Amino acid sequence: MANVGVEAAAAGKRALVVTGTGSVKKNGLLDVVMSALDSEGVEAVELSGVVPNPEIGSVREGAALCRERGVDMVLAVGGGSVVDAAKAIAAAADYYGDPWDFFDKKAKPAKALPIGVVLTLSATGSEMNGNSVITNPETSEKRPMYHPALYPRFSILDPELTFTVPPDQTAYGVVDILSHVFEQYFHNVQDTPLQDGLAETIMWTVVNYAPLALKKPDDYNARANLMWASSLALNGLLAAGTGGGDWASHMLEHELSAKYGIAHGAGLAVIFPAWMRRVYKTNIVRFMQFAVNAWGVDPTGLKEEDLAVKGIEAMENYFRNTLNVPVTMADYGIDGSRIEEMADSAMKHKKLGSFMSLSRDDVIAIYETALGS
Amino acid sequence: MANVGVEAAAAGKRALVVTGTGSVKKNGLLDVVMSALDSEGVEAVELSGVVPNPEIGSVREGAALCRERGVDMVLAVGGGSVVDAAKAIAAAADYYGDPWDFFDKKAKPAKALPIGVVLTLSATGSEMNGNSVITNPETSEKRPMYHPALYPRFSILDPELTFTVPPDQTAYGVVDILSHVFEQYFHNVQDTPLQDGLAETIMWTVVNYAPLALKKPDDYNARANLMWASSLALNGLLAAGTGGGDWASHMLEHELSAKYGIAHGAGLAVIFPAWMRRVYKTNIVRFMQFAVNAWGVDPTGLKEEDLAVKGIEAMENYFRNTLNVPVTMADYGIDGSRIEEMADSAMKHKKLGSFMSLSRDDVIAIYETALGS
Repeated sequence: MANVGVEAAAAGKRALVVTGTGSVKKNGLLDVVMSALDSEGVEAVELSGVVPNPEIGSVREGAALCRERGVDMVLAVGGGSVVDAAKAIAAAADYYGDPWDFFDKKAKPAKALPIGVVLTLSATGSEMNGNSVITNPETSEKRPMYHPALYPRFSILDPELTFTVPPDQTAYGVVDILSHVFEQYFHNVQDTPLQDGLAETIMWTVVNYAPLALKKPDDYNARANLMWASSLALNGLLAAGTGGGDWASHMLEHELSAKYGIAHGAGLAVIFPAWMRRVYKTNIVRFMQFAVNAWGVDPTGLKEEDLAVKGIEAMENYFRNTLNVPVTMADYGIDGSRIEEMADSAMKHKKLGSFMSLSRDDVIAIYETALGS
Repeated sequence: MANVGVEAAAAGKRALVVTGTGSVKKNGLLDVVMSALDSEGVEAVELSGVVPNPEIGSVREGAALCRERGVDMVLAVGGGSVVDAAKAIAAAADYYGDPWDFFDKKAKPAKALPIGVVLTLSATGSEMNGNSVITNPETSEKRPMYHPALYPRFSILDPELTFTVPPDQTAYGVVDILSHVFEQYFHNVQDTPLQDGLAETIMWTVVNYAPLALKKPDDYNARANLMWASSLALNGLLAAGTGGGDWASHMLEHELSAKYGIAHGAGLAVIFPAWMRRVYKTNIVRFMQFAVNAWGVDPTGLKEEDLAVKGIEAMENYFRNTLNVPVTMADYGIDGSRIEEMADSAMKHKKLGSFMSLSRDDVIAIYETALGS
């Protein structure tokens, strides 16, 4: 935290400071950041109110502020939603069309203002990549963009800033981190011991340290391991040489968040068990490896398929019983009435899936399994 | 390889193309690179003749060429020695004192020309960090420098470019990669499952894939895993949060290279077994973990110390018998006559060791053990 002023001063002279719905004001973090900026001669322009599943309205507002006030860098102080909004603002500041164009694939950013991050939640990995995901409430769409210019110039990862994250948000963050690993771990490339070992290390660490952080929210080492895991899970290392990941489950989840407003991590905990049950026969060896190396399932005496399924069950049980995160749409009172609409929306921009390419029938079947009973 | 022209053109208009002692000319790689530069409008100025344990003379020559010819980027085509020389040249191009000042800690670079890499040897990790190590034959010194501006803008890692690396160079490269992991794996910080898992993954991968590359030099997957391992082993990930590494063994090895001209990897295979035997009691649990997770030693029924020592022996046997790399100074015809001189030189700039801080007596004892019989 001591470096935020110096780092910001190296990136610009007038910063748009983007925050969420109030916690960094209440707990005093914003004051500390503002004072650090001031002492290094960086002027601050504030934009608050970014919501979870950040909305295009904040992006439009922030981009307009950047132009009006001559802002030359964007500093996110918050979790992944705030970081994603800050990135979209940085890209939109010099774009005179509607920023939603980037997410609807009608335009690509030419450049972006430099971005800095003070992270307060271990989850999205947005602090160490060029991704941004924004929701458009007018069209009930949640869409990703990627651009190398969105990679933060600096990110300050101080585990103590996550001590006050409540248990449900901690748990959703853990699901998000694990989900990023899943998206990249399930591929069909052979001979990838480095990628496998790194992925399994992250999964093992998160699975074993999350309960410590839930039990004792100020457990520094537990919070530190979750924080570093969140960055390593989605900074490009895991998918290097394996094709970039599957990401179908994320697209299916984005529909749940966009249509029903549930937290991203909550939606992922619903989608992943259903996705896995639909696809595991594509590469059962990979799911056997997952069961043993990520979840510690003892393979002794188990048939291949039983071992693979036991891994999926172990994950589901961990979500439900250890993290206390529901694993069905029914748990959130969501019925099946919009499944066809969600399937069409999820398939709007490109083919879904690379571990297994998903047809519309597959997508509908996954949503139906995710409904639960 | 297809991208080298485009990447270089993004970094500059006139490139100093730095190469070694001839192999990239003989095998046609240099022609391919030159043609790619030409087709993107990048002019090339050649500097060849960089030797293993690259010398300050090449750095002086390259820096002068940069100034005379208005070079605005440096492209290394070769292994780690060529990359290290290119980095030092990039830093020295705008420095009007003697470039050795950087290595003798008399000056720090203010900036550096952009650096690009086409890598032909999996070993040093220099393709993905800000380090450079240069030898001064006038003073028999080999010294490191680090500066963030020395981080390459791009590095092209094509495993096929390593198919023609002969067995001894392949083996020295493997020792170098493993040594970088050792330097960062042996620390006394608690609760580092992410760093441990990544380090153990790299060690396991290198130990198991190196024999495949030695047996079949054009085994793409074996070469690819060694190449990616070389970068991951020394790009900052392993020592994040653990204090930066020990590096005493590297300092002791630099004396062997500087005084006797032996290959860096060869020197490391001599120093590490001796260093480990001197320090393992400092943290025997760490050495037990090393034995089991890196070398696959079965811990059943072994006392703590026996397990730790078996790991060291497994490594030594692997160097000698699997890689065919000697593990004593005597194997190279080196006697003990310059041990005191080497100890004084190794301790010239700073304290040695963080896993265990080494006294002059420790250093001398390590060299004496490394002598062998």
